[in-house]
Amino acid sequence: MRYELYYWPSIPGRGEFVRLALEEANAEYDDVARRKGGLKALMAFLAARDATHSSAQPPFAPPFLKAGKMIIAQTANILSFIGAHHGLAPAGEAGRSWTNQLQLTIADLVDEVHDTHHPIASSLYYEDQKKEALRRAEDFRAHRMPKYLGYFQRILQRNKDKSYLAGAKVTYADLSLFQVVAGLGYAFPQAMAQMAKRYPRVIALHDRVAARPRIAAYLASERRLAFNQDGIFRYYPELEG
Amino acid sequence: MRYELYYWPSIPGRGEFVRLALEEANAEYDDVARRKGGLKALMAFLAARDATHSSAQPPFAPPFLKAGKMIIAQTANILSFIGAHHGLAPAGEAGRSWTNQLQLTIADLVDEVHDTHHPIASSLYYEDQKKEALRRAEDFRAHRMPKYLGYFQRILQRNKDKSYLAGAKVTYADLSLFQVVAGLGYAFPQAMAQMAKRYPRVIALHDRVAARPRIAAYLASERRLAFNQDGIFRYYPELEG
Repeated sequence: MRYELYYWPSIPGRGEFVRLALEEANAEYDDVARRKGGLKALMAFLAARDATHSSAQPPFAPPFLKAGKMIIAQTANILSFIGAHHGLAPAGEAGRSWTNQLQLTIADLVDEVHDTHHPIASSLYYEDQKKEALRRAEDFRAHRMPKYLGYFQRILQRNKDKSYLAGAKVTYADLSLFQVVAGLGYAFPQAMAQMAKRYPRVIALHDRVAARPRIAAYLASERRLAFNQDGIFRYYPELEG
Repeated sequence: MRYELYYWPSIPGRGEFVRLALEEANAEYDDVARRKGGLKALMAFLAARDATHSSAQPPFAPPFLKAGKMIIAQTANILSFIGAHHGLAPAGEAGRSWTNQLQLTIADLVDEVHDTHHPIASSLYYEDQKKEALRRAEDFRAHRMPKYLGYFQRILQRNKDKSYLAGAKVTYADLSLFQVVAGLGYAFPQAMAQMAKRYPRVIALHDRVAARPRIAAYLASERRLAFNQDGIFRYYPELEG
């Protein structure tokens, strides 16, 4: 089956977690909004969603994935689907649940990263909430970032000779943690340089994912979007303290 | 199987979404931290989690559910497990995915409610971020609350004569939306009185869930915790604008 991914065309954002899973799975997909005229297709889809009499199960927001007749939204939910269909999560209930749990914790971290530059409202510019952003980013660097990275470090330590969060085999949660580490390195380079010393296994996981052949090929391709100042991970030097 | 729920004993918080599902399922469970000495058991569990050589898959934060050998964390992940084992979600992949998607959207809304009174840091008192809270709550009432409630209203409209978010049968997502509507009514009574006129189907869903026999019995019992000023849903009159 050829999938259709719908996500904003100019940012990695939450869509990137889905792209990484599709790429590692070697799945066929169209990145709809990045085709010529594709943003129109995404906007038309969202407008149709808001029509009361549309029959489809409507997504609240991008990203969403069309898989045959299914329209699947919410990043962790999309990844759970891809994981089950493409061997990117354990098949048993306990392993599947653990991978989903890891992903939801990563999603919480991603939300908190977003709120370092938008603590008041997504609808306002950064400049209109910069004062609040300075306070929130300070707390994030001092408390939240080490709390999350320390958690993943401990999980990886426990696994001993196993390489990934859920054991010896890569899952979509590993691909997502790769993206978070890359994004934090972009947004908070100084803080991440410090964290890298404290949480070396998290960095090693990032490097291990980056070296996987399909991921390496993807990262070198034009399909990979660079981090930029409109996404979740943004670099504002003043937020480094 | 008798479950063990681990969650802070003094607030409904995220644990309440799990309780509602366990109650509707008529499942046997211990609310561990609310037993005598139970908070100690919760704290001991969290301390053991942080020991590097513990072998269990560690939760990042409460709530978590012990189900035999499994320790399941992240609210939506716990609910997905309960839904599958107790008929509180459709059995087919499409329905299961849709219910999970709805729950994750509810979880996003819950995060935003929390941040109306804690926009800077969970570790700080409300009083130390009140100025920022006033701004964030204003945006929440004006934009986010109607966006989310309007979304659920449209889903319920689409279902026509069917009663619940995923169709004719109740799911854990309906129980969660009940809790959110109740919580918003506590935290933002004026705003919710307005919203009730615009989104009557959401209110009707709340009432339908409240009238289900097991839920009604639970709500009348001592097991149900009242909303209070330490939870996610708090009433600060100044945040009503």
